[in-house]
Amino acid sequence: MSKLSELGEHEVIRRIIPRLGRHKELITGAGDDCAICRLPGGETDQVFTTDPVVEKIHFLAGEDPRRVGHKAVGRVLSDIAAMGAKPQWLLVNVVAPPDMEMTDLEQIYDGMNALCDRFGATIIGGDLAKGTGLELHLFGTGILPAGRGLLRSGAEVGDVILVTGPLGNSLSSGRHLDFIPRVDEGVFLRETGCVHAMMDVSDGLGTDLRHILAQSQVGAVLDAALIPKNGDLQSALFDGEDFELLLTVAEHDLAQLRLLWEARFGRGLSVIGKITADIGVLQLNDNGALRVIDSKAFEHFRDT
Amino acid sequence: MSKLSELGEHEVIRRIIPRLGRHKELITGAGDDCAICRLPGGETDQVFTTDPVVEKIHFLAGEDPRRVGHKAVGRVLSDIAAMGAKPQWLLVNVVAPPDMEMTDLEQIYDGMNALCDRFGATIIGGDLAKGTGLELHLFGTGILPAGRGLLRSGAEVGDVILVTGPLGNSLSSGRHLDFIPRVDEGVFLRETGCVHAMMDVSDGLGTDLRHILAQSQVGAVLDAALIPKNGDLQSALFDGEDFELLLTVAEHDLAQLRLLWEARFGRGLSVIGKITADIGVLQLNDNGALRVIDSKAFEHFRDT
Repeated sequence: MSKLSELGEHEVIRRIIPRLGRHKELITGAGDDCAICRLPGGETDQVFTTDPVVEKIHFLAGEDPRRVGHKAVGRVLSDIAAMGAKPQWLLVNVVAPPDMEMTDLEQIYDGMNALCDRFGATIIGGDLAKGTGLELHLFGTGILPAGRGLLRSGAEVGDVILVTGPLGNSLSSGRHLDFIPRVDEGVFLRETGCVHAMMDVSDGLGTDLRHILAQSQVGAVLDAALIPKNGDLQSALFDGEDFELLLTVAEHDLAQLRLLWEARFGRGLSVIGKITADIGVLQLNDNGALRVIDSKAFEHFRDT
Repeated sequence: MSKLSELGEHEVIRRIIPRLGRHKELITGAGDDCAICRLPGGETDQVFTTDPVVEKIHFLAGEDPRRVGHKAVGRVLSDIAAMGAKPQWLLVNVVAPPDMEMTDLEQIYDGMNALCDRFGATIIGGDLAKGTGLELHLFGTGILPAGRGLLRSGAEVGDVILVTGPLGNSLSSGRHLDFIPRVDEGVFLRETGCVHAMMDVSDGLGTDLRHILAQSQVGAVLDAALIPKNGDLQSALFDGEDFELLLTVAEHDLAQLRLLWEARFGRGLSVIGKITADIGVLQLNDNGALRVIDSKAFEHFRDT
């Protein structure tokens, strides 16, 4: 017998995944940013994701309710963006304490709707329950052409690793409450046809990149000097909640991709490292010295 | 300024509904058992629903985890059944205390999967967060032919009101933890093409029928002697958590529907009353004496 706190979030998830279902229309199940299912007709895939946003974990009590709503929608849109999909429908379960002010709950919805409107997503339902603290459980879907979803498992040895923006200090700066999910960027990147693997950076580069390494059966070397940073290297590697996109492409596609990207978004797409053949090994080139990066990410259930 | 506890669940929901989105592919939004959206191609509709299952509200601490999982899936499949849809994909957010045993969490999934397997549903993802008590937030989808979803708004004056099984004592008997959602019955009823309005009985007949009355702009008279009961009349009207289907059909279709139903399911489909023109008025014929039924249902946020 083991308690969840003894196992930690990642081990708990590893034990649950074999208990998730299999189905011929299920293209990609648990373990990516979204599950992918083939729609009737066979021309379109639908992606599915959920995100809990819980008081004292994802935001502090007393936080501006519009920003809490913004963050909840931002997280789920970021998962959808990470597949290269267009957001579609959202549903929201709210757990709220009975003494919560109705106006605060209304402002949560205003914050959620403002971000939905920006990206063509629509909140179509949900449910309510009483609880001791505020929780929002978001469920979201998106669509993309069949077979074109960008997975964590597509990275190839020799690929360059890119990130769509600076990492670190998201929590300390408050940016985790008003970040803009990279929805337009995700769709653009999928449409270029040259991205091998993609995910969003929610737990920190040093943790999230490991998922690409494990699922693609590759390794990586990051270059400390090239990582775009808000703050120091440690923050850029381990803070999390950045919600930038992390992707790999073949080196021969890089120049063309950056030209298209800069023409479209008017800012840079940063090369931060390279995919290697050392399966599961994540290294950092720090001013010429190579060292292995350990995982130090936040895990639910563990006290860190 | 009003607190949620001063407004009660139904008023809170009434104030949130205007904050939900509109979209040309959204056929039916909040206010029914599921939202309905048109899929690309235009031949199929997809239904969406969420259900929270929270410790101390929907089950007691220490309850058999397999039964808790069964109930969580049963509730969401019941919502899908109430539209006449076939269940498709489920995602699960788990909020769990750190000292929960991993084996208990695994058994929750075993309970969820056993019921999913029975009805061709598949759990394809979800997420985890730490909390003070156990909560399961289920998100589910289903499909049905475009435009054929059974709504609460279709009841017509003169319709007979039917229910698929006995009502009451679900909580006291423990049936709320092992009920079988009426998925096969919901699809069958939709395929007959004669059902005007349908929903599932989750908050009690006396409360849920009001939703059909409000959305169809009709009234109803129930016949106390005809309501199939587990226990007394009060329990049948107000206990809730029955998860039987409640529907209305034109009187001229009744005989044929019952023949088909009995041939398929080998048990009765109970006529329990009639739809009237008295908009919003719910009456009970109790041995010849007519009286108005007040709503006494459980509401989240209110202490009842």
